[in-house]
Amino acid sequence: MEGRRVIGWAARDASGYLSPYSFTLRKTGPEDVVLKVLYCGVDHTDLHQMRGEIMPINYPLVPGHEVVGEVVEVGSEVNKFKLGDKVGVGCIISSCGKCLSCNSKNEQYCNQRVFTYGAVNKDGTPTHGGFSSAMVVHQNGCRFVVKIPEKLAPEQAAPLLCAGVTAYSPLKQFNNSDKAIKAGILGLGGVGHLAVLIAKAMGHHVTVISSSEKKKVEALEHLHADAFLVSSNAAEMEGAAASLDYILDTVPAFHSLEPYISLLKAGGKLIFVGVSTKPLHFNNDDLILGKKSLTGSFIGSMEETQEILDFWAEKGLSTMIEVVKMDYINKAFERLERNDVRYRFVLDVAGSNLE
Amino acid sequence: MEGRRVIGWAARDASGYLSPYSFTLRKTGPEDVVLKVLYCGVDHTDLHQMRGEIMPINYPLVPGHEVVGEVVEVGSEVNKFKLGDKVGVGCIISSCGKCLSCNSKNEQYCNQRVFTYGAVNKDGTPTHGGFSSAMVVHQNGCRFVVKIPEKLAPEQAAPLLCAGVTAYSPLKQFNNSDKAIKAGILGLGGVGHLAVLIAKAMGHHVTVISSSEKKKVEALEHLHADAFLVSSNAAEMEGAAASLDYILDTVPAFHSLEPYISLLKAGGKLIFVGVSTKPLHFNNDDLILGKKSLTGSFIGSMEETQEILDFWAEKGLSTMIEVVKMDYINKAFERLERNDVRYRFVLDVAGSNLE
Repeated sequence: MEGRRVIGWAARDASGYLSPYSFTLRKTGPEDVVLKVLYCGVDHTDLHQMRGEIMPINYPLVPGHEVVGEVVEVGSEVNKFKLGDKVGVGCIISSCGKCLSCNSKNEQYCNQRVFTYGAVNKDGTPTHGGFSSAMVVHQNGCRFVVKIPEKLAPEQAAPLLCAGVTAYSPLKQFNNSDKAIKAGILGLGGVGHLAVLIAKAMGHHVTVISSSEKKKVEALEHLHADAFLVSSNAAEMEGAAASLDYILDTVPAFHSLEPYISLLKAGGKLIFVGVSTKPLHFNNDDLILGKKSLTGSFIGSMEETQEILDFWAEKGLSTMIEVVKMDYINKAFERLERNDVRYRFVLDVAGSNLE
Repeated sequence: MEGRRVIGWAARDASGYLSPYSFTLRKTGPEDVVLKVLYCGVDHTDLHQMRGEIMPINYPLVPGHEVVGEVVEVGSEVNKFKLGDKVGVGCIISSCGKCLSCNSKNEQYCNQRVFTYGAVNKDGTPTHGGFSSAMVVHQNGCRFVVKIPEKLAPEQAAPLLCAGVTAYSPLKQFNNSDKAIKAGILGLGGVGHLAVLIAKAMGHHVTVISSSEKKKVEALEHLHADAFLVSSNAAEMEGAAASLDYILDTVPAFHSLEPYISLLKAGGKLIFVGVSTKPLHFNNDDLILGKKSLTGSFIGSMEETQEILDFWAEKGLSTMIEVVKMDYINKAFERLERNDVRYRFVLDVAGSNLE
């Protein structure tokens, strides 16, 4: 079918300023699914992508990779989804389907993964994200479309599609453990706050680690963390030495690792989900003498994306979000940049006048 | 029983020069075992310990932590060993027995572990190692005494008690895997050569990674590695990108990690067993985008020490050793320091005139 005419909000240059942009979705075939976008989460990564700070960008660029939509068209060979289904699309819309990572259901590590926006479709058209009235995804890509559980409000689901699964994927290995797990969450932003909620729902004893006292009340009273550690308080840190099974490190900047490695028990893991632009340092005897690990995790698999949605619905959890209209987006990014959001903006795309 | 008078070879100062030293073993009680030392392996760590480069040392110091001996006295309450048993003692002779690490049979990570030499016994006497005619170990410490399988020549067993189990402990997790494992061994010294033999015996496809071509014939023809990579050869390294499940990194010095992290598959592990005196660097997105890990491993548990001895006997493997008498020890350390040994010196303690 001919591509639909849609309106998105696009960055036109590396300033990252967004404005209405009319474009045509690619043609659809028998294996394609078209979504009307309902809600879309707003992430720090969008900011860096729009500015070309992660990879070279062909403008205009329509961001958005936490997309909740409603199926409004299915090709004749699509059998997993039907009209009216509420579905989610995350960071990736396609992968090779053949490599080791794809075969082990870890398609997010496929070298040929295609990102939801800022990349190129097989027909050569640019991929555009969820800051748009509609999106199209290929049947192969149906692997990359998840179902939103009925019990979950669509705006609640949005942050789970990237931030939520980013926290869930590495924490999953500690779920249903036969021993009591002591968790550390380093940094309380979009991913961090969801990680606290997930770890608590998994029954872990959760310590939030932060650079200042500022977020103490938030962590303990609103997110119900069990403990709060200020990383600059040497006595507090010393008291918590060798106490944690894992630390989820969400800090997207250079930081010293030694204090956090010290907090880990023998066999403990420090798991990075935030990219530091500068190399990080460590003393390898700190790893050797405690069998400790530094490791990383990237988003999560599509299976895990479905799992976190189901987990969230089953446990009756709530994301803490601020829902805004599309014409607020530039202001939202401004506030996001100074961490002035508790904890995630979600765009009400369907409820916005996009023109 | 009164302590036995024994002769060891001791370092008297930080020069590390060894000479005969007559001393008295501590008194033995109902839970003690006395060993006549037969053979003792010679390790790089001994050199650093003797010079006080790892921790402060009270001289005289009798080194030796790959000790194969024969039981010549058992206390009335010792039931695990009897006179005439061939036994082994490694790096540690005691631990608290109560902490998480001890309870999970990972006593090598116990914070109260007592090293075989250079430490202090509970009665305040210094611990002395296997460069000595005899040693005494406490019943609690019987946890730290392993049996040498009958099929294994005692001089063959010595290097397994530290170097061997150091290689075996982290490789064990890849044994009996349901998929074909591709291994990398970085550095071909005492631990590295045993790691190649162990990984091959586990059925892994083994690539030796070295800084030069020098050890190519050795690796491929004598140790039967499957492949050899020169780390400075960019084309070779590029061709092997993302191909390995793990790399055992035995390099005891600063080195750049990026080339080796690149060799790992998604989910792969770089495992340190050699201590770098300077901090190491890495880009954390290299870990995040491939779910890769940097981790470390310290010797191995006593259970694993017994396992590697049994594994070695069962697989009919041979350590490559050069057996020397005690009066050659200073020369042996000289040669060890310039890597002029293939691959490990073993002291024939019982066959030496120690005076």
